[in-house]
Amino acid sequence: MTTAIYPGSFDPITLGHLNIIKRAAQIFDEVVVCVMINGGKNAPLFEIDERVELIGRTVARFPNVRVDSSDDLLANYARRFEKPVIVKGLRAISDFEYEVQMALNNKKLNHELETLFLAASEKYTYLSSTIVKELGRYGADLSEFVPCEILSEVQERTKERR
Amino acid sequence: MTTAIYPGSFDPITLGHLNIIKRAAQIFDEVVVCVMINGGKNAPLFEIDERVELIGRTVARFPNVRVDSSDDLLANYARRFEKPVIVKGLRAISDFEYEVQMALNNKKLNHELETLFLAASEKYTYLSSTIVKELGRYGADLSEFVPCEILSEVQERTKERR
Amino acid sequence: MTTAIYPGSFDPITLGHLNIIKRAAQIFDEVVVCVMINGGKNAPLFEIDERVELIGRTVARFPNVRVDSSDDLLANYARRFEKPVIVKGLRAISDFEYEVQMALNNKKLNHELETLFLAASEKYTYLSSTIVKELGRYGADLSEFVPCEILSEVQERTKERR
Amino acid sequence: MTTAIYPGSFDPITLGHLNIIKRAAQIFDEVVVCVMINGGKNAPLFEIDERVELIGRTVARFPNVRVDSSDDLLANYARRFEKPVIVKGLRAISDFEYEVQMALNNKKLNHELETLFLAASEKYTYLSSTIVKELGRYGADLSEFVPCEILSEVQERTKERR
Amino acid sequence: MTTAIYPGSFDPITLGHLNIIKRAAQIFDEVVVCVMINGGKNAPLFEIDERVELIGRTVARFPNVRVDSSDDLLANYARRFEKPVIVKGLRAISDFEYEVQMALNNKKLNHELETLFLAASEKYTYLSSTIVKELGRYGADLSEFVPCEILSEVQERTKERR
Amino acid sequence: MTTAIYPGSFDPITLGHLNIIKRAAQIFDEVVVCVMINGGKNAPLFEIDERVELIGRTVARFPNVRVDSSDDLLANYARRFEKPVIVKGLRAISDFEYEVQMALNNKKLNHELETLFLAASEKYTYLSSTIVKELGRYGADLSEFVPCEILSEVQERTKERR
Repeated sequence: MTTAIYPGSFDPITLGHLNIIKRAAQIFDEVVVCVMINGGKNAPLFEIDERVELIGRTVARFPNVRVDSSDDLLANYARRFEKPVIVKGLRAISDFEYEVQMALNNKKLNHELETLFLAASEKYTYLSSTIVKELGRYGADLSEFVPCEILSEVQERTKERR
Repeated sequence: MTTAIYPGSFDPITLGHLNIIKRAAQIFDEVVVCVMINGGKNAPLFEIDERVELIGRTVARFPNVRVDSSDDLLANYARRFEKPVIVKGLRAISDFEYEVQMALNNKKLNHELETLFLAASEKYTYLSSTIVKELGRYGADLSEFVPCEILSEVQERTKERR
Repeated sequence: MTTAIYPGSFDPITLGHLNIIKRAAQIFDEVVVCVMINGGKNAPLFEIDERVELIGRTVARFPNVRVDSSDDLLANYARRFEKPVIVKGLRAISDFEYEVQMALNNKKLNHELETLFLAASEKYTYLSSTIVKELGRYGADLSEFVPCEILSEVQERTKERR
Repeated sequence: MTTAIYPGSFDPITLGHLNIIKRAAQIFDEVVVCVMINGGKNAPLFEIDERVELIGRTVARFPNVRVDSSDDLLANYARRFEKPVIVKGLRAISDFEYEVQMALNNKKLNHELETLFLAASEKYTYLSSTIVKELGRYGADLSEFVPCEILSEVQERTKERR
Repeated sequence: MTTAIYPGSFDPITLGHLNIIKRAAQIFDEVVVCVMINGGKNAPLFEIDERVELIGRTVARFPNVRVDSSDDLLANYARRFEKPVIVKGLRAISDFEYEVQMALNNKKLNHELETLFLAASEKYTYLSSTIVKELGRYGADLSEFVPCEILSEVQERTKERR
Repeated sequence: MTTAIYPGSFDPITLGHLNIIKRAAQIFDEVVVCVMINGGKNAPLFEIDERVELIGRTVARFPNVRVDSSDDLLANYARRFEKPVIVKGLRAISDFEYEVQMALNNKKLNHELETLFLAASEKYTYLSSTIVKELGRYGADLSEFVPCEILSEVQERTKERR
């Protein structure tokens, strides 16, 4: 059984992330959305537990998707699966260079570990968690950016950041 | 059973292509390397049949890889498989834009059809069939560029192009 | 009165071009879609006169848009307007470098002449006349790529190119 | 009357910004240079009021340019104008992706709102407020980077940052 | 004695090329501008001998610069110098990927051979032989694009290409 | 005597940096690896003195390489050498734009000062001090990323950052 690990910060999960999850769920036996705990990041919008809960709500309808979190190196975290691959979305050029760097380094650290990239759907090419936070701070309507199941939480939390 | 279609011109197949094939063969149940016949291309180095034969020689050791050719649109060709995905290697930025364009268009033409990208190994980031043809014309040693099984054919044929 | 000149090959006009025209028509007093005659191009799909006619059909509903053709240098062609600007769409990085090059050179050749860029809508980021011709050759359905007023002509003509 | 809004941090205004303002003032009826107040930014060089004053000094000679500041979302701020467009300069690839992202998001939030891009003049391709601050810290001569009207203030203030 | 080889098509030499030559001549003991004969190129503007002569005229004032031509692979051509390096100008991103590819391949074919890149001066970022030919075809004034010593030849020859 | 200044943060020096130093040492009479002191950087891994010592250890075998540090502007620091050039490695597109910006600005501030770029070896295209710090925090084996002479220090120090 191939497990596709979809790692990220998901602070918060966007419609762009959800699109990748849905497509990965159609290709692979199982998808694990994994919130990577990165000590270095400054003041997150949602705590790790909250993010896991918010993702869980939006992926509830996909039977072969589950949510996890990890403070381990991705290359190590993957070892707990029988046949893991990493799945990432690619939006723009700036993504590309960083993601290829991480993919090649993960392969150096765990020789069997491959990263498969899916091109972001046109609709989500210019969507990111950062943009969501930026726009939310001004009270902009985020319904075209985040899943409806978590819209009110994201609107509220981002507004407080003003 | 998921079939990964790896489409291309393969004129000729390089060590970079072979690296992608090997990695795809470890992830997917079956890999079909498909020489796409593109009427628009000018004077190829090898005819379609020759390319199929050369690829066949280099992938003989992989039990779940086979070679095909098609003059159909990729989005249509894929319909003959039960559960197809397309696999492509990504080397540089210039690849990225074109490949994403093709991936999104293939999805428009065949709604189930996903393209999965693998980052080219560092060793092959700057390798392409075009470079092989360019260097071969001058009689340069191509042993670091093409599989050993086809080296003599490629050396000879490229040299004639001078 | 400011005239926005929208130059291009338009071989054929796509929904991406039409989107730029519509948006420019809302900003500027007048838009002139100009088919630039470029002797260097090989075997076009449609002749200049045909292209002008096809564009004319798709822009008929915009009162402040008209179509023209020119075999002059764009920087010279612009001199016939009282207050001209050039309008161009930007899709991807590869566009960007070439278009900026042309914009700066046009300013060198005609010091008053500015080029204004509009970002292509997400839907059309990966659409080009080249892709239309490529897909049409295989008989793919082009209804998501070209305006409905010219769909049958483009389907037929591209198919003949096989 | 079309109003071109030129938004930015302008901390401080550079010769590159001034070049865009001058060119926009020749194309549009009115240009409003708007200092966007972004709570997230760390320790600015100049306070908002100071920036407005410094910009005012350098654009005094253009009759159809005025300066403003806003702590609102740009898409909302634009609503106070009858016929607004946003104007932005494009220097390099890294600009391009971010600016296109903002342009498309602004259009999502305010459906009439278009962003028009001007290519930075070659002379200013590699000039930014960040570079000015970086070089000023070491006491470098900034006369080729910022308008002469504000040179002494910028030299002094950046030097204090050492 | 280090010899900097500056290879290219130089069809025709532009002010951008000349700027790189001048700068290389200040850094290295000797600069050899080498017209690379590439059988694959279609209808050149000037023949190899003409290009050598035109370059010779524009570099006559630099005592440590000389002109040559070669139909060999660059990696082989370099072997005739005691201590060769290759010098190339970098303008834009599109240059970057191709040039890095060539630099790394040249190092594979000739292990001692390094390529050193100089960033094109801002003034010449958007200048290329292709642009010169394109603009010249329309009779545009090329005095800001090519050295004055060869201006009349280039004006005439490009115009004939109409 | 030409002195190649190789400036950077080197926090810590990686195998990618060492590769550039080795290649520069073969081309130029003398190479000075200079740790640039940049007040703006937050919490470094190693202090300036430590970095100088660590670099010193890894370059001890190159007779014409020495290490220095400076809190001056690079364009000024270079003035202390008779015939200085700057040497930088180029890995990816994101490097390219920033480095070209710095090269052109350094030339503005010190008219004789040229920057020469070497393409990073394929093996090191995706290696950076930032990646080393990121991976080290998780206790990953860094032996493919940093020189063996400093491996234990880097492993320890990065791990403490967890």
